[in-house]
Amino acid sequence: MLQTDDLTRYCDDHRQEALEELEDWLRIPSISADGAHRADVRRAAEHAATRMRALGMQRAEVLESKGHPVIYGEWLGAPGKPTVLVYGHYDVQPVDPLELWASPPFEPQVRDGHLFARGAVDDKGQVVMHWEAFAAHLRTRKTLPLNLKYIIEGEEEIGSPNFDDFVAHHRDLLACDVVVVSDTPIFSEDVPSLTIAVRGLVNWEIHVDGPTLGDQHSGLFGGAIDNPINALTHIVAKLKDEHGRITVPGFYDDVRELGPQERAEIAALPFDEAAEAKRLGVPQLHGERGFNPLERMWWRPTLDCNGIWGGYQGEGSKTIIPAKAGCKITARLVPDQDPARITKLVADYIRAITPPGVRVHVESHEAGRAIVTSREHPATKAAARAMERAFGKPPVMIGMGGSIGPVATFDRTLRLPQVLIGVGLPDDQTHAPNEKFTLSQFYGGIKTMAYLWDELAATL
Amino acid sequence: MLQTDDLTRYCDDHRQEALEELEDWLRIPSISADGAHRADVRRAAEHAATRMRALGMQRAEVLESKGHPVIYGEWLGAPGKPTVLVYGHYDVQPVDPLELWASPPFEPQVRDGHLFARGAVDDKGQVVMHWEAFAAHLRTRKTLPLNLKYIIEGEEEIGSPNFDDFVAHHRDLLACDVVVVSDTPIFSEDVPSLTIAVRGLVNWEIHVDGPTLGDQHSGLFGGAIDNPINALTHIVAKLKDEHGRITVPGFYDDVRELGPQERAEIAALPFDEAAEAKRLGVPQLHGERGFNPLERMWWRPTLDCNGIWGGYQGEGSKTIIPAKAGCKITARLVPDQDPARITKLVADYIRAITPPGVRVHVESHEAGRAIVTSREHPATKAAARAMERAFGKPPVMIGMGGSIGPVATFDRTLRLPQVLIGVGLPDDQTHAPNEKFTLSQFYGGIKTMAYLWDELAATL
Repeated sequence: MLQTDDLTRYCDDHRQEALEELEDWLRIPSISADGAHRADVRRAAEHAATRMRALGMQRAEVLESKGHPVIYGEWLGAPGKPTVLVYGHYDVQPVDPLELWASPPFEPQVRDGHLFARGAVDDKGQVVMHWEAFAAHLRTRKTLPLNLKYIIEGEEEIGSPNFDDFVAHHRDLLACDVVVVSDTPIFSEDVPSLTIAVRGLVNWEIHVDGPTLGDQHSGLFGGAIDNPINALTHIVAKLKDEHGRITVPGFYDDVRELGPQERAEIAALPFDEAAEAKRLGVPQLHGERGFNPLERMWWRPTLDCNGIWGGYQGEGSKTIIPAKAGCKITARLVPDQDPARITKLVADYIRAITPPGVRVHVESHEAGRAIVTSREHPATKAAARAMERAFGKPPVMIGMGGSIGPVATFDRTLRLPQVLIGVGLPDDQTHAPNEKFTLSQFYGGIKTMAYLWDELAATL
Repeated sequence: MLQTDDLTRYCDDHRQEALEELEDWLRIPSISADGAHRADVRRAAEHAATRMRALGMQRAEVLESKGHPVIYGEWLGAPGKPTVLVYGHYDVQPVDPLELWASPPFEPQVRDGHLFARGAVDDKGQVVMHWEAFAAHLRTRKTLPLNLKYIIEGEEEIGSPNFDDFVAHHRDLLACDVVVVSDTPIFSEDVPSLTIAVRGLVNWEIHVDGPTLGDQHSGLFGGAIDNPINALTHIVAKLKDEHGRITVPGFYDDVRELGPQERAEIAALPFDEAAEAKRLGVPQLHGERGFNPLERMWWRPTLDCNGIWGGYQGEGSKTIIPAKAGCKITARLVPDQDPARITKLVADYIRAITPPGVRVHVESHEAGRAIVTSREHPATKAAARAMERAFGKPPVMIGMGGSIGPVATFDRTLRLPQVLIGVGLPDDQTHAPNEKFTLSQFYGGIKTMAYLWDELAATL
């Protein structure tokens, strides 16, 4: 195809330009978690809007949210054609511990085919792929085959606390046919992949109260009153068995069972369980019986205690029955579990199993349902074709154990199909020192996005 | 009995003198836990030795330990007669929160028949009872019916960390026939009592380690690896069931079952379970089935988690599988449990039940076995007669759920019979603001100790 060849050639010819574009943006330390970098965050947003306009977008501006600003861009020069909303984020993680970086995190450096800098792959690099893909179209053809909107968030690394609100207040501005999110990695360098499932998230905080009179002497009262910590361990132990199966009645009622296709796809993936256990430093991987680790991470729900506290945590011993204890718990949900139902189910169960000698208080927060994109959806198939063209292999369909807040927001607020297409590698050290973006992935990613617009325009 | 009448009369005639003696000592803020009071602690010891010599003891001096000093006194003027070692302590608890005191803690004040001051009953007041009883004998009869040694510790309120060592290094000095400890309360003002059982104490610290690589993302890895907090809750929940029965195999093997006598004695005591639950602020008392609260506190072993920690304890949520979790556990032992055996039994069991996806490390500390004094021992019977004479009612025999470090030390090091005879009341606010000693108990206690020497001399 001549058109694709034009795009390919453009992308190949402008690698250095794309790299410099990314490096310029990476020099701005847009750490959203650190109040000292508030001005840098805004500067990174202004820089992006300026660059997006320079690349030919019809509109690109910095919009206010209740927190850090959001960049909005658009090119709507293809009336009657589909509209795609691209999501990414320009804020980055903190850089501590700084001494572990081989080169300064905000002075991008290329070594051995990798670009090292904070934000290189998460997520500035993957946003710049979209800028370059846009430029490839506009400069080779003076137009695009569909309409594009860009929303580039500044608070993803702090949990997108204001994104729900922002999207709700900009429904009309964000109206589109499909959302493309580029903030996920692929399975491995040899195994390009599309993410078709992300798990949902709900969380609870359990507070168990014993004597309101305060901590009691464990000798004088031991055996006479219940102990909030012991009671809490009984509660938590009853939520999930030792084999990793959640024991809350009804929890699995709506879980969509893995089909033969998901099982076969996972079975075909290279995954060395012993090597992974060694890498993490655990005696062995562990989880629900009857499922392998990838099945458990992507397609099975789970429940984890993220923190626990109570009584004396210092040196030596303090012989008390503490007045209170508590813990934080999150569950990852899969299709078709309803977060509201699960939230209530677990909270009610906790109340029901709390021993009579203590009081319990449960706070629940529902963060979002699991999202699954049909592999049969035309947008998914278009994305697969685009990725195959760019990387020479058809991508496998994978799940992701984590939960992407904005993906849940788009699902909840806009109720639109989403394509999760990113090209980072599992060893990119996101959130850690020496974050990098492998340049072959960056350049392949630009082509992928350039091809994606053609594929989507031909399909939708 | 003429002699007893003489003692009684002396005690009645010298109440004011006894009160002033105690008040003088209470003015010295001998807070052992507070380094800022180190000189006060020593001053309180010197003051006591001076007073003890003034009262007629043949020897009274301040001996060094590895921590705060120990006061040693003696009157050995009855060769061929039994020797009794009296134990007490002169250090006191801190006074915070100071604003809750109705009068300054180190300015003793009598209100409504109670003497208010820090240390009034715990334990200076009960030591002064012994001084006054000694004086009653010596001044009325110019002699005593037996030999007396006094050891008054300065670190009881901080756990007697150097007392084992001190006793081991002064075996000859402390040689005696029976030990009398006055640091326990009676059951209630209407129910004089002797303590014939104190529980033993052992403790463990459990460390559960998950990924050595550090905290992991609970989304990416949830379901694939075990969670140290969840694993810890399974371990702790398996140590004691929800009804308070310890489920470690073999734990109860050597437990001496309550006899009909203990059951009958406890059944005869006034104890309002609902009122106690209300006072403590718990929905209900709770513990091992088949035993009432006093039976459980005094004669049944128990196991309590004193502290637990792991993962994120701050505001909001952090979606991690923590790298580690841990907890502190103590068990109270009863006759005839062997602390060394129990320590190993529980530690081995914890290791055996640890799930395969985590590693466990257990530290054990063995603090002492349960002590029980035979109610048939002549010294116990002598003490009961002395108390009946002073308070007009025969004392009941009670247990105590706590563990008294020095009692365990005497048992372990000197292997001697002990009499636990104190006259404080349960509402004396020991360790709390407005500690008091009810004067009728103080004066009754002086008589009790004066009579005790006659009773013991006639019996041993």
